[in-house]
Amino acid sequence: MKPLILITNDDGVNAKGIRTLTEIAAEFGDVVVMAPVMNASGKSHSLTSERPLRVTDIKKTPELSIHACDGTPVDCVKLAVEFFCPRRPNLILAGINHGSNSSINVLYSGTMGAVIEGTAIGINAVGFSLLNHNPEADFSGCIPSVRHIIGKVLENGLPSEVSLNVNIPRLPADEIKGIRICHEAKARWLDSFVQRTDPLGRPYWWLTGKFDCENPPEGSDEWALAQGYVSVVPVCPDFTHYESINKLNSLAL
Amino acid sequence: MKPLILITNDDGVNAKGIRTLTEIAAEFGDVVVMAPVMNASGKSHSLTSERPLRVTDIKKTPELSIHACDGTPVDCVKLAVEFFCPRRPNLILAGINHGSNSSINVLYSGTMGAVIEGTAIGINAVGFSLLNHNPEADFSGCIPSVRHIIGKVLENGLPSEVSLNVNIPRLPADEIKGIRICHEAKARWLDSFVQRTDPLGRPYWWLTGKFDCENPPEGSDEWALAQGYVSVVPVCPDFTHYESINKLNSLAL
Repeated sequence: MKPLILITNDDGVNAKGIRTLTEIAAEFGDVVVMAPVMNASGKSHSLTSERPLRVTDIKKTPELSIHACDGTPVDCVKLAVEFFCPRRPNLILAGINHGSNSSINVLYSGTMGAVIEGTAIGINAVGFSLLNHNPEADFSGCIPSVRHIIGKVLENGLPSEVSLNVNIPRLPADEIKGIRICHEAKARWLDSFVQRTDPLGRPYWWLTGKFDCENPPEGSDEWALAQGYVSVVPVCPDFTHYESINKLNSLAL
Repeated sequence: MKPLILITNDDGVNAKGIRTLTEIAAEFGDVVVMAPVMNASGKSHSLTSERPLRVTDIKKTPELSIHACDGTPVDCVKLAVEFFCPRRPNLILAGINHGSNSSINVLYSGTMGAVIEGTAIGINAVGFSLLNHNPEADFSGCIPSVRHIIGKVLENGLPSEVSLNVNIPRLPADEIKGIRICHEAKARWLDSFVQRTDPLGRPYWWLTGKFDCENPPEGSDEWALAQGYVSVVPVCPDFTHYESINKLNSLAL
């Protein structure tokens, strides 16, 4: 039986990036796509609990089914695995995201939320992002790297409890230098909100922000991307900071 | 100058738990509360980018100001630090959550999203949760533990890049055995959605789920809570699984 690959994203089911990813995945197995009906960027690991979810079926063949859901990327993964996949998926893919999910952005990303959910429910998962947030971004430069990584993960699996955060520089395929396994660069967003006044004179605040990551060290994802490499960061759904357990014990908290 | 403590939650500004936490925090310093106007459980680390945010001021004195925001808990932290705090907070607190955020729940929790955001922007942060999700839960058993931990963190700080996920058993204060520094128990949610049919004959899916955590090992948060201890798990906003970097390099990914 062919591998079954479940695909989602946070840019929405009609985004260009998820169409590219679906085409590549279809070379490896049967594909189920379950993705948010609208943009769900920045949804992180959020779940929808206050209202029910609806699903629209866009395509249904044995090799490829495509569904749109009015929930978050994590809702999409949970719902698809339980109700829309004909068998348990061998792999969950998310993306290709329009824009970077490197460094601290993994915290906020709906795409990476879906990937981490995959690992949390015991299915190997990989998120792909292109460093170009334009809706009309050219994804052709990504294709060889995405194909290579999907093939390797299907062949070798992943370390237990680990998923991959893959970011791809905005370069033609033949200018990409290779793939680097990295750690997250330390970074933060400054000046997160802009304050404005509406036509009735009342204040409102809208998310904006400036990405602040100076001199990322060799070995970090921001460094690799700046050098023209694809960055691959292993991420884990267990947030425990094990190294601090003894230190906190000694503080007699 | 007294310490400034910023408080948020995910149950909403009018929840009983945040009122208890605000009263305890006010013993230690000036307090700014910025919390979601409605329930925002399960919002994880999500941000609001598609629309602007509005804020309602509920109370404004030099010692205590209370604001309600129509965004997520992470929005509340970012917005309050930039626009509503008279100086940089010394500590961010979230909760007291109505219901557990132990184990895998830290992934989905809006309360813990806010806490991890605090650490990501360089401010010590602690999330408190009571193992009782009833809106009318009795928080009196939590008070001594919450007071003790706030005092210790203000006095000693926290290890760099580490925040605390504190869960408190549903017991009277004099039956709580003490505080244990723990790691997350491995657990998962099964049967996430229930499928039903609406009055017009169309299907919908609503979030539910069964928490699955059998025989949590000694040292894990679920174990400590079952024994009657307060569990404290150090968590980190860097999701990199450092131990896998060499292994992935050897796979020639």
